[in-house]
Amino acid sequence: MRVIKLTVAYDGTDFCGWQRQPGERTVQGEVEQALAKLTGKRIPVVGAGRTDAGVHARGQVASFQTELRLEDAELLRALNGLLPGDVRVSSAHTASRGFDARKSARSKIYRYRIVNAPQVSPFLLRYVLHWPGRLDFERMAAAARLFKRKADFTAFSSNRLLRPVRRVMRSELKKTGREIIFTIEADGFLRYMVRTIVGTLLEVGRGKVEPQAIGDLFVRKKRSLASPTAPAKGLCLIKVIY
Amino acid sequence: MRVIKLTVAYDGTDFCGWQRQPGERTVQGEVEQALAKLTGKRIPVVGAGRTDAGVHARGQVASFQTELRLEDAELLRALNGLLPGDVRVSSAHTASRGFDARKSARSKIYRYRIVNAPQVSPFLLRYVLHWPGRLDFERMAAAARLFKRKADFTAFSSNRLLRPVRRVMRSELKKTGREIIFTIEADGFLRYMVRTIVGTLLEVGRGKVEPQAIGDLFVRKKRSLASPTAPAKGLCLIKVIY
Repeated sequence: MRVIKLTVAYDGTDFCGWQRQPGERTVQGEVEQALAKLTGKRIPVVGAGRTDAGVHARGQVASFQTELRLEDAELLRALNGLLPGDVRVSSAHTASRGFDARKSARSKIYRYRIVNAPQVSPFLLRYVLHWPGRLDFERMAAAARLFKRKADFTAFSSNRLLRPVRRVMRSELKKTGREIIFTIEADGFLRYMVRTIVGTLLEVGRGKVEPQAIGDLFVRKKRSLASPTAPAKGLCLIKVIY
Repeated sequence: MRVIKLTVAYDGTDFCGWQRQPGERTVQGEVEQALAKLTGKRIPVVGAGRTDAGVHARGQVASFQTELRLEDAELLRALNGLLPGDVRVSSAHTASRGFDARKSARSKIYRYRIVNAPQVSPFLLRYVLHWPGRLDFERMAAAARLFKRKADFTAFSSNRLLRPVRRVMRSELKKTGREIIFTIEADGFLRYMVRTIVGTLLEVGRGKVEPQAIGDLFVRKKRSLASPTAPAKGLCLIKVIY
């Protein structure tokens, strides 16, 4: 038995997210289907991050066990030959025996893109949130830094978990031309966590929420107090760190 | 009566090209429909280049006549508010009285993108030709320079015209990483001209056609001697010069 580590990129637009669901087109489903064609067996694939419908990935990592005797390079070519064009395996390597894409991950980096301009290019339409209204970037950047902490992130998630504490080691906002880019790295993410943080940053940028109120959300831990969830299409899983 | 000059960008993937056709989704059709909603009148719009199905544009130019009293900036906002997201008007200006997007154009610049690598990113899928096989870039670049001439381009078009002479003032190939970019500027283009030239360059790159044979094609003027037409999705109308 070998463990294979795949790096996977996908355009999430036409997927119901990573996780396999009956009757839906999902990335995990496509990868497992390609593997089934290749090996004749049903092999479960583990993904590092369960990206939601419409969320993209440049550096998702997936792992699976196999007795397949293909060289890594052959496996890479074979999988890409069987996968649809909106999912690409960018690397395939034999990993150490105990490797598990999800459990072995130390942290993950997500990026959220906002185009703050009257118009957005038709070529970016599927990959950014278009926000034509005014945003106070400096206020947003200051608020973004407040998320760099080890804390209970329940107020920024859609569900209540037994262990809701996550360590965010990077949370920063940059501006390049008319694009605002939010980058966040954490040892784990609750469901909708990045999109709820982005929703909160947008409220701060609009002047509806004071940056100071964010500390309060961490104390009160109530989802209803946080801001709306930002749309999926601006979000991308950039990298998983092991 | 005012003449309005629009600069238009579109993702051509989901369009049957620029030109209006009954029952088909076309860019001209969408722009005219938006104008009809805005003015209550059917106003014909002239496009500088009749891009084919699947071809993209960053700087298409369109013109129309109107009695509408909106400011240019208001017109821009109103049109974008009525157009679907895969067509954007990036500028709208009142032009001089005789301006006609097609007839007034001095030249147009098209670009064709080829990714010459084993895999292509899912985010480029709709905008490039993926060519995994080996290509001799230097041979192709030398061949590309041979198209810079004033000549009868019948051999590089799908149909025979009465006036098939075009002046190509720029025809060059560049390489950036694994991407090969062909840029061509001419005072006019015959149908499928850029894509047939790219098809020929690919044959040169594969070693199937000698660069020297290109001069011969100009002499013999027979389409059947030229190479297959490259797919639409790699092509983009970059700029129209007046």
